[in-house]
Order: sequence, then C-alpha cells, then structure tokens
Amino acid sequence: MFTGIVEETGTIQAIKKTGLSMALTIAASKVTSDVRLGDSIAVNGICLTVTGFSDNQFTVDVMPETVKATSLNGLSKGSKVNLERAMSANGRFGGHFVSGHVDGTAEITRIEKKSNAVYYDLKLSPELTKTLVLKGSITVDGVSSTIFGLSDESVTVSVIPHTISETIFRTKAVGSIVNIECDMIGKYLYRFLHKTEQTKSNQTITEAFFSENGF
Amino acid sequence: MFTGIVEETGTIQAIKKTGLSMALTIAASKVTSDVRLGDSIAVNGICLTVTGFSDNQFTVDVMPETVKATSLNGLSKGSKVNLERAMSANGRFGGHFVSGHVDGTAEITRIEKKSNAVYYDLKLSPELTKTLVLKGSITVDGVSSTIFGLSDESVTVSVIPHTISETIFRTKAVGSIVNIECDMIGKYLYRFLHKTEQTKSNQTITEAFFSENGF
Amino acid sequence: MFTGIVEETGTIQAIKKTGLSMALTIAASKVTSDVRLGDSIAVNGICLTVTGFSDNQFTVDVMPETVKATSLNGLSKGSKVNLERAMSANGRFGGHFVSGHVDGTAEITRIEKKSNAVYYDLKLSPELTKTLVLKGSITVDGVSSTIFGLSDESVTVSVIPHTISETIFRTKAVGSIVNIECDMIGKYLYRFLHKTEQTKSNQTITEAFFSENGF
Repeated sequence: MFTGIVEETGTIQAIKKTGLSMALTIAASKVTSDVRLGDSIAVNGICLTVTGFSDNQFTVDVMPETVKATSLNGLSKGSKVNLERAMSANGRFGGHFVSGHVDGTAEITRIEKKSNAVYYDLKLSPELTKTLVLKGSITVDGVSSTIFGLSDESVTVSVIPHTISETIFRTKAVGSIVNIECDMIGKYLYRFLHKTEQTKSNQTITEAFFSENGF
Repeated sequence: MFTGIVEETGTIQAIKKTGLSMALTIAASKVTSDVRLGDSIAVNGICLTVTGFSDNQFTVDVMPETVKATSLNGLSKGSKVNLERAMSANGRFGGHFVSGHVDGTAEITRIEKKSNAVYYDLKLSPELTKTLVLKGSITVDGVSSTIFGLSDESVTVSVIPHTISETIFRTKAVGSIVNIECDMIGKYLYRFLHKTEQTKSNQTITEAFFSENGF
Repeated sequence: MFTGIVEETGTIQAIKKTGLSMALTIAASKVTSDVRLGDSIAVNGICLTVTGFSDNQFTVDVMPETVKATSLNGLSKGSKVNLERAMSANGRFGGHFVSGHVDGTAEITRIEKKSNAVYYDLKLSPELTKTLVLKGSITVDGVSSTIFGLSDESVTVSVIPHTISETIFRTKAVGSIVNIECDMIGKYLYRFLHKTEQTKSNQTITEAFFSENGF
C-alpha cells in the first residue's frame, strides 16, 4: 500500500531480460536505508518485491503480466525512476490509497505551464477513464495527482513545481508514456454499481415495472 | 492488523481438539523472537492470540467459528503454516490492509508456470467474489496477492518466485484448500453501496417522485 | 493511536465531578511504569490525557462532551477499567487502528458461552452500525473485536477466554453499557462514498435518462 508521494528518483543500473520477464537493478539512497528482502517498493508506481540489495542499490523481479501492462519496456540503463517505499504503519491516512497495481499506460499529449502549475493532458483508454471522477485521484508514474479535466479518452492533471522537481515529471515530454493507476475506491464502486445495474437491467424497466409501481 | 507479507513458515507441533474448538502448538523462530502473551499472529492468514510460548514455539486457541470458516481442520502434525506478526508501528504496508478475519476458503483448480511467475486459479463462492475487483488485492493463506483474473466463481492470482519460496504456496497442489480474506476496502464499499441501494429502492417510485423530478 | 489490545485493568480510586466535566484517579501498575504528563492512555477505549501521576496511579481530565458520549458516568470508586497506552514506535498493531474517539455506547443484550468462546450481542444505534461490515473490526470498551453478526441495530462479537480474563469483559452482564468505536477505515470510506453520492445525485433524473431507457 502506498500514498503516491514519491520519496526519491533512482537510476536504472541494469536491466536483465529473460523471456517475457525482467530483473531491474536500481541505484537509490533513501529507499535502501532500511530495505529488507521481500520489501515492496513502488517503481514508477508499480509495486515490486525486493529480491536483493547492497549499499546503494536494490534488485526487483518483474512478471510478464506487469512488463506487458506498464511502461517498463521503455526504460534503459541510466533512466530515472520514481521510488516510494510501502506506507509506514504510523503514516498518515493520505487522501488516496495506492496499491501499486498499475491499470494501464497513457500518452502525454499536451504540457502547458500556467502561473505556478503545469498542466498535462494524458490520452488513455475509456476502460480506465470510466472509473474516474472529476477532482478525484489518479496515480501517474506513482505520483498521486488530482483530476482537473476528464473526458472519455483523456485526463488533465496539474502538477506543482515541487513535485515536478522531485519526480521524473521533469524528464517527460509530449509523447512520453506514463503508468496509470486509477483510484481504488472508484474501481470498486464502478464494479459494484455495474454488477447491481447488470442484475437490475436484466430486469429492464418494462411496462410491467411501471404497473408494479402503480402507474 | 497485518499486511500479507509472510515472515516465515512454521511447523505444527501439536493439535489439541476440545469439542469444536482447537489449540495449536507451532514451532517458529522469527515470530517468537519478541513474542508476548496476548500478541496477535496470523497463521495461514487467520489472526490468532498467543496464549503460551517457549523458546521456539507458541500456542494459540482457535474458536469454533474460526475452525468452521477456515482450512485449519486440514492441518496435522508436521504441516507447514504461513506466519506473520501484527504490523509493527514502524513497519510498512508492503501488501495491503489485512485484518486476519478470514472470509472463507477456496480450492486451487489450476497452477500454471509462465516465465518467472506462477498463476493460480482459485474456485470460490460468489459471496466472496462480489466484493473483489480486477487488479485489486486478496489475501491467500495470509499472502497479499494481486487479482489478475476475476469471474463470479473464480479468481486468478499470480505469485513471484520469491513469494513461492518463502511461503506454503510451495506445498500447494491442484485441489488444495486455501484461506481467503477479501480486501477490507472492497467489503466496506460493497456494504455501503448496497445499504444505499436498499434505502433508495425502499422509496418505491411514487407519483410524488415523478413530480419532484418535473414529470 | 491505539490498537485495542488491553494491557491491564486498573481501578478507579477517585472521581471528582465539576459541573459536566470530571477528573478520574486510576490505580495501575503497567501503564504507569513509563508514564509522563500529557501521555495518552485509553480508559475503556476513551483516549484521555494524563494530567498527574504518582507511583501506582494517574489522573485524567474528562471533557463534558466525552462524559456525555460514553459510559464513564456509570463508574464509581472501585470500578475496574480497561487500560492501554498509545502505540509505541516499536509496538505492534495486534488489533486494528483505534483512535480512542468513542462513537457512542451500546447495551449488552445477550451473553452466550459456546465451547471456548463467549458471544455478546450489543444493541446500538443504526448511526453506528451503518459504517460496520461483517468480519470487520469494532472496539468494545477499548477491546479490538471481530464482528460475527450484524443487523441495523445490533452487532455480535465473540471473545476468547484469554481476552475475557485480561479485561473488564469479565465484569459485564446483560444490561451493561459499553463504549463503542467503529473502525476508522469504515468511517473514512462511508464518508467518502456519501460525498461522491451527493455530487452524483445533484445530476437530477432528466428527460434524457428516460429516453436512454427507451421511454
């Protein structure tokens, strides 16, 4: 469980591909300070398990399913990545539960600086936008962001200078691919609501429905 | 409160059945290192209270309700079990919010190795799947897992080699029974949504309802 | 933050009432071992601030609001109370997240011993049950408990012998009043869902809604 507050940006030291899976070695200082085997660390928003570590670097295994559903394939030696350790038990209940299970990717289609904020338009599938809500939360490469604009195929988020300087947002350009996790609560509500609708709409609003209700 | 990151596997030393309840004596080293009477330890995902301990073993009481709702009845002397101590205040939520209150059991119906991941199909009741969501979390024998496939009667989780080697997943086969805890967040939202649906549908659609909405 | 694992039962030495507020002096040994002015101690699940202490006793002030919302008024000299210190940095969440902010009281309406567990039916307001969920957590007089039964106006919890012997559950009878705190995660999600419902229901049922449904 994470909160979407990036702790530091690390650097890819090595990428070992074996068939469809991958092992990443990442240089970092803060998240390795108390690391142990089996710990969970979010790498660009993807929850990965630490399988090895030394002073200032750690290694993680990436399953085929995860490689396929994220932007990890676009990484190379020297790439910068957002890093966050799992939420600490005495941490604050942030406004946003992030599981680190990425739902898909999006493409940056517009970057616009307005006063002290930068607006990013992200093109993404309706499968993802359907569970989102205006002013709701979305995680972009592990960064918890607020949704300022929303349509069937795009989302607009606005990022403050501090977040840009502390994350890989600073390395992004129009055309960049980012990992997207939709807010957990929205996903649950969408599924429950549509399962109920499904059961209800199997009983479509028919003439009989009205007569049952005395019309 | 747990997080679904198993700390070690212990071994059943003795099982004492009294009527419908049970007392288990479990050999372990890591979770007994700082154990105290009254501590909570998750045994195959079930939160149990320590009622006795010595150097490398501890004893727990199991209520009839818990014996009935879980796979504990299938254990025997020498069985391996997953163990996790309650979240430490300075610990991290490497998995998700796990209460240790098991919701039911599931049967493993398929095990498939794909590259560096192993996929498990679990057959379980619609009463449990109704509160789950794709890419959501589920606890299997105390192991925090990601839902990669979901239907009314089954869930597919994928487990990385590290987790398999560190837990009793390594002892499981098709037909094995596992304990399931559904994600707490999903259960809450499901109940709230259906209570709201219930209150809404109790207000049958009346003449007044239509006029209020301008028809 | 507490976790609902009672450390010891203390004894009321003195109760000083001033208008609607109250000062309690409580005899205890364990929780006074490292006590300091300003520390938080949960008394029957109520987070109170230590305003004075000597070897084996401490004093706390109780605000009118807290006196009104809890069962403290029912205490007298010699009454036993459940005590728990705030989570220490190296403590463990053996129960669940407990804030010590009591939501209300409940009346015990049934006590039934079944094998090695005792079941308690608690009558409480729908305002409290609405945020609860089956197999979820609830705090009863500061004791973290699992919800085994739930209806609009009642909750059933089951308590193991160890917990009964270590807490004031042993002094309770049918008719006793207990303090209730509902699970923090449930309250948080309930509020979040109803805020979202409010935003949705502002979009009244329009002509379009009906034409979409074929009318």
